[in-house]
Amino acid sequence: MTDTVTNTSAWMALIQRRTETALDHCLPTATLAPTRLHEAMRYSVLGGGKRMRPLLCHAAGEALGADPRTVDLAACAVELIHAYSLVHDDMPCMDDDELRRGRPTCHVAYDEATALLVGDALQTLAFQVLTEGALPSHQRRLLMLALLAQAAGSRGMAGGQAIDLAAVGVALTVEELEFMHIHKTGALIRAAVLLGAHCGEADDATLQALGHYANRAGLLFQVVDDILDAESNTATLGKTAGKDAANDKPTYVSMLGLTRAKELSARLRAEAHDALAACPLDTGRLAGLTDYIAERTF
Amino acid sequence: MTDTVTNTSAWMALIQRRTETALDHCLPTATLAPTRLHEAMRYSVLGGGKRMRPLLCHAAGEALGADPRTVDLAACAVELIHAYSLVHDDMPCMDDDELRRGRPTCHVAYDEATALLVGDALQTLAFQVLTEGALPSHQRRLLMLALLAQAAGSRGMAGGQAIDLAAVGVALTVEELEFMHIHKTGALIRAAVLLGAHCGEADDATLQALGHYANRAGLLFQVVDDILDAESNTATLGKTAGKDAANDKPTYVSMLGLTRAKELSARLRAEAHDALAACPLDTGRLAGLTDYIAERTF
Repeated sequence: MTDTVTNTSAWMALIQRRTETALDHCLPTATLAPTRLHEAMRYSVLGGGKRMRPLLCHAAGEALGADPRTVDLAACAVELIHAYSLVHDDMPCMDDDELRRGRPTCHVAYDEATALLVGDALQTLAFQVLTEGALPSHQRRLLMLALLAQAAGSRGMAGGQAIDLAAVGVALTVEELEFMHIHKTGALIRAAVLLGAHCGEADDATLQALGHYANRAGLLFQVVDDILDAESNTATLGKTAGKDAANDKPTYVSMLGLTRAKELSARLRAEAHDALAACPLDTGRLAGLTDYIAERTF
Repeated sequence: MTDTVTNTSAWMALIQRRTETALDHCLPTATLAPTRLHEAMRYSVLGGGKRMRPLLCHAAGEALGADPRTVDLAACAVELIHAYSLVHDDMPCMDDDELRRGRPTCHVAYDEATALLVGDALQTLAFQVLTEGALPSHQRRLLMLALLAQAAGSRGMAGGQAIDLAAVGVALTVEELEFMHIHKTGALIRAAVLLGAHCGEADDATLQALGHYANRAGLLFQVVDDILDAESNTATLGKTAGKDAANDKPTYVSMLGLTRAKELSARLRAEAHDALAACPLDTGRLAGLTDYIAERTF
């Protein structure tokens, strides 16, 4: 794969396809009881999404020479955590959003109770995936499970969402906004990169350098998200545009203005590349993804 | 501990206390950010509950000669899954219950969005606990994680809740009711017993016998729950009595009548004891707990 696909967008399409297949295999079939729950789980995970976390996971795995079939499992675990968080985040008591990836959100397509259970069961499945299959040694797998749990839990993603809830209508500093995003989206993006690296043979120095890269890439992703939310329309994004502003949620654009938000994005992009340059690995894929994150239009 | 505490209720009080301490240690302190989330997590887990699953976990561990400090971690993991399911189950889109363990439910004491995140973060913490601490070998730990994930997921507890949702106002057969409970409550009770056994040195035959016991004990627990729900009042139960009947949910009492439900309870109790008698272990604690489950009044 590495030898033949040199172009970033062709490689991305390839990883997106194999991730779709891997997720399809992870998820219970819709004919299995309870069928409505399984159907709703598949609806919420399959058929869309940028698969940014699986892409980062595979890019890091490739830098470490990991077997892509091993990386598939790590990528699925991270994506299932992401998918569960979207289902719960869209619910009426949270962001109350009706559109995701251009389709009705889970609680709209099914119902609220089903959406609650879908999110719950997807989180469980994420951990289950890492306990099974042809992953590295038992010790490495436990490390990966611990890493994913830390990234997803109350001091990671779920904690970031709690900080986000508390931030509605509150005047934050840019530092507080960064603190929120490091938890809400950054923790799982970092986990994606590190889980990919763990699928190969990563030493501590490499993990540290990749962790530093992931912190910058995670913030870059969020700043670009805020810029797109301010500049795009709903049809292009596939989710409700201008939602954060309408909900009085602080964003990089609302706090810094568009010009300074774009300057910040350029700085984070440069810092992400610097972090990669410090890794004694072929990090070409990660570099290509970083440029994609910085330049994406949806 | 084994030598000095021969009486079941004294032993139960002891395990309940050590479980409270162990859970307190597992949970992030309420002074740690995000403080409101951590406070709500602690509110939802600590200070109450029969701790039936930790009791079963310790009773099985004791039968296998496991170190109780090891069993504490397994017991906490199972109880955290149980606690998360209660928080989500009480939410307005599910059972819409305002009372739990004699106190306002999480979404009443805090708010719905916080309750959603509390449940999510408690589930994550359950898996995290099993990745850490002084548990058995890496291989055994992975087995325990897989077992917990299977019990909690869409083909276990969460699946049972989905079946339960679909059963409102529907005429079930007793077999279908049993199928629901085997998933909704039985899977996690089984996991509690087997995780406790895994903390010792359990061979396959022992695990199978204990699994059979747990299946009977889990159903017994549910049948007694239905009888208590029909016969008790809210003050005694610490949760809203008569709720299932009011919600038009099928129960053993509504389907069999009180007399036949009590006959079923007696039969399951006998079968549970038979299953224990088939184990080549000192299963005195499990036998004592079985009698407690059958005779409990709240």
